[in-house]
Amino acid sequence: MRASLNCDMGEGFGLYRMGDDQGMIPLIDVANVACGFHGSDPDHMRATVRLAKAHGVKVGAHPSLPDLQGFGRREMKMGREELANCMLYQVGALVGFLRAEGMVLNHIKPHGSLYGMAARQEEVAHAVCDVADIYGVPLFGMIGTLHERIYAERGHKFVAEYYCDLDYAPGGALIVTREHEAKDPEEMAARCLRAIREGQGTANDGSTFPTRCETICVHSDTPNAIDIARAVRAAVSEETV
Amino acid sequence: MRASLNCDMGEGFGLYRMGDDQGMIPLIDVANVACGFHGSDPDHMRATVRLAKAHGVKVGAHPSLPDLQGFGRREMKMGREELANCMLYQVGALVGFLRAEGMVLNHIKPHGSLYGMAARQEEVAHAVCDVADIYGVPLFGMIGTLHERIYAERGHKFVAEYYCDLDYAPGGALIVTREHEAKDPEEMAARCLRAIREGQGTANDGSTFPTRCETICVHSDTPNAIDIARAVRAAVSEETV
Amino acid sequence: MRASLNCDMGEGFGLYRMGDDQGMIPLIDVANVACGFHGSDPDHMRATVRLAKAHGVKVGAHPSLPDLQGFGRREMKMGREELANCMLYQVGALVGFLRAEGMVLNHIKPHGSLYGMAARQEEVAHAVCDVADIYGVPLFGMIGTLHERIYAERGHKFVAEYYCDLDYAPGGALIVTREHEAKDPEEMAARCLRAIREGQGTANDGSTFPTRCETICVHSDTPNAIDIARAVRAAVSEETV
Amino acid sequence: MRASLNCDMGEGFGLYRMGDDQGMIPLIDVANVACGFHGSDPDHMRATVRLAKAHGVKVGAHPSLPDLQGFGRREMKMGREELANCMLYQVGALVGFLRAEGMVLNHIKPHGSLYGMAARQEEVAHAVCDVADIYGVPLFGMIGTLHERIYAERGHKFVAEYYCDLDYAPGGALIVTREHEAKDPEEMAARCLRAIREGQGTANDGSTFPTRCETICVHSDTPNAIDIARAVRAAVSEETV
Repeated sequence: MRASLNCDMGEGFGLYRMGDDQGMIPLIDVANVACGFHGSDPDHMRATVRLAKAHGVKVGAHPSLPDLQGFGRREMKMGREELANCMLYQVGALVGFLRAEGMVLNHIKPHGSLYGMAARQEEVAHAVCDVADIYGVPLFGMIGTLHERIYAERGHKFVAEYYCDLDYAPGGALIVTREHEAKDPEEMAARCLRAIREGQGTANDGSTFPTRCETICVHSDTPNAIDIARAVRAAVSEETV
Repeated sequence: MRASLNCDMGEGFGLYRMGDDQGMIPLIDVANVACGFHGSDPDHMRATVRLAKAHGVKVGAHPSLPDLQGFGRREMKMGREELANCMLYQVGALVGFLRAEGMVLNHIKPHGSLYGMAARQEEVAHAVCDVADIYGVPLFGMIGTLHERIYAERGHKFVAEYYCDLDYAPGGALIVTREHEAKDPEEMAARCLRAIREGQGTANDGSTFPTRCETICVHSDTPNAIDIARAVRAAVSEETV
Repeated sequence: MRASLNCDMGEGFGLYRMGDDQGMIPLIDVANVACGFHGSDPDHMRATVRLAKAHGVKVGAHPSLPDLQGFGRREMKMGREELANCMLYQVGALVGFLRAEGMVLNHIKPHGSLYGMAARQEEVAHAVCDVADIYGVPLFGMIGTLHERIYAERGHKFVAEYYCDLDYAPGGALIVTREHEAKDPEEMAARCLRAIREGQGTANDGSTFPTRCETICVHSDTPNAIDIARAVRAAVSEETV
Repeated sequence: MRASLNCDMGEGFGLYRMGDDQGMIPLIDVANVACGFHGSDPDHMRATVRLAKAHGVKVGAHPSLPDLQGFGRREMKMGREELANCMLYQVGALVGFLRAEGMVLNHIKPHGSLYGMAARQEEVAHAVCDVADIYGVPLFGMIGTLHERIYAERGHKFVAEYYCDLDYAPGGALIVTREHEAKDPEEMAARCLRAIREGQGTANDGSTFPTRCETICVHSDTPNAIDIARAVRAAVSEETV
């Protein structure tokens, strides 16, 4: 009964920094690597894949809506095929960098609004599956959503994730914001354990909701991201003894 | 003694059209498919790969400097690793679309200024090889240039191409322009045959220069592109009887 | 009782062409000039402003959502201030080119999805007004929409436009599509006259709806755009005798 | 005998931060505001203009080559008219934000490689003048360069600047790098005073070269930018007593 830690990484762009990837990489199992549409660029992708390799961290694709200025956090109306092509482009680019380092694609996890849209809109969830069909890798997502159902119907392995540093609305809907705020590390670690052990998530009003946690998502651009990740890592590792 | 016909394709963008890909595809053997940095986008890439598949045309990558407005025809000062990553991103993206259609990458041919820079600047030619190392595919280029020498030294298969619809300066330097002008189809076909049979290219002042022609490049955005391609196709096919 | 003819212009990008601006410019009174976010670039803007000046055509700004690949025809979720800044950037850029040619801004007309969003979403209509406040120019729009009401409430001059080459749904909602289809020029001219004289628009099922036509919008990227514009121009000019 | 302090500002993009604009603004007289082509976006431009206004800081335009990933620090081959249009677009956009805040354009200072290219290439310097012609504002630059001569020949006011936090090569050529490194604040302040009082610049080997300092440029993305600016501010202010 152990959950992995996954983190969105490589989200800098050009001279711009985003998150402390160097500090985060020793604490995680799996990296969701940005593919240039909400953050990152070819140089950051190369460096991030190398960083993951050096730390034995598996790499998944973290494709986004095409919106660099909005960091992929502004919804856009796009059709299924258009979305699938948009993701296929990004995943292919990442797989090129993985190939250069002798690595393989571990999973796909849509980013930001694309992730949220896949959770609510059938066509978007299908677009994600259209891409996963080609690579045959698991999809990360949230339980109780439309994408959980559709990924399963399409025959894809669904890995349920719990967000340790984002707020959930009562009932369990994830609240996606453009910027993340600092959270209490110990409290977050406790919530993760509760999610893993009891299958209970914690909403922003303290209420709980049924959940399932196969992987825990930490963000590197939360103000105290490393502290949170360290606390969660410690709690989860202890769990496995 | 037969040369293939290759053509840059899929260079539209969004609603913008570029070249008559539908008219050109039955006339060529090999397509150099744009990868989104000088033209194309995920939808055009998907459609172009499908078009090539439907016509039994092989697909190579046609990566560019990152300059959509300039159509990749403005030189940029970039370092070797930065250039390699830039190309690796694009080639990977294309390979993703090829994978979706059950196809494999046939070759790499840099686009526009990147092609010209690789012919003259050692670091750029090496960057091209750095990418070819990863995919193990042939590189298209011009004989008598620095990239011919470096590609060979690095152990890559070099496919010599002759441009049937661009001007050569006396001595054989290719003149890369932002827009292409109409050419006389029969004259162009005759020049191609001369290049194949006699190993002689024709410069814009009528003088000749030693060349080698293993593949003939036609452009789809030349005003009378289809006429040129048809004439060249006919001449080259006859040659092989 | 005369309506002006307005047309979206300067929507090419780099080497890409869009519409026959040279053919259209003698037929119109007012140009809605693209500002680089859905089409155009600094060179096209300069050339378009010069073209308008040479033909005595007034220039308005045609700002868009930031979506070059989607030609501004994909809705995006953006906040009011973010939208206002996005438009202010584009309008300012255009005003720079107008200043270079000794011209002044005539009006503002949002493009594509931004236009449609302003017609339906209060915050978007207010964002348009926030920009118009700064330039004190009229706003083009559709009657019976939310933006008509809000523009008026905010004290802006509202110029009612009728689309001669797009389809209206029964009741009068404009149908915005990514690509425009050919229309019958004489039928379109007749519809315009009916809109001007009788205040009746024509829907795609032949039914009519109350409208008001102070300016007629023609598009330059409709397949037979020039023919439509010529027929409408002739009809409207006759009207004024 | 007092030199102003100028600083490149507003160079963040989307969620990405660049430099401590809040810390720097009370220390400077003039802000060179990024216009979206190497950094910034409409939201950052609006906020930066407001910040400058709140602190009584004058605003100049800081236009760049179109290269967001390279932060405008990669040279591109562009023609004079193309460069002028590129700058005109950016300057116009900034003037729009200034107009929104009731401010006027103070000067133009090209960014990064565009600045360096204007110092060495005649056509680029002329392109800068072509834009300044339209706004009638002074141009910031380096003495002893080609742009100093051409700006003067074209009748523009030239404001000589001294870079307090960049290295000069022996002889006085500015060394433009993609990233800035920390400098000793007191040493930098001393160099500024030497430049103002004695007309002597200091090269990276300790040698001096004749210079003239009418404005001192500090950067906000140098690791210890605020410390340097504070030391220089103190030294320069004392000078004027």
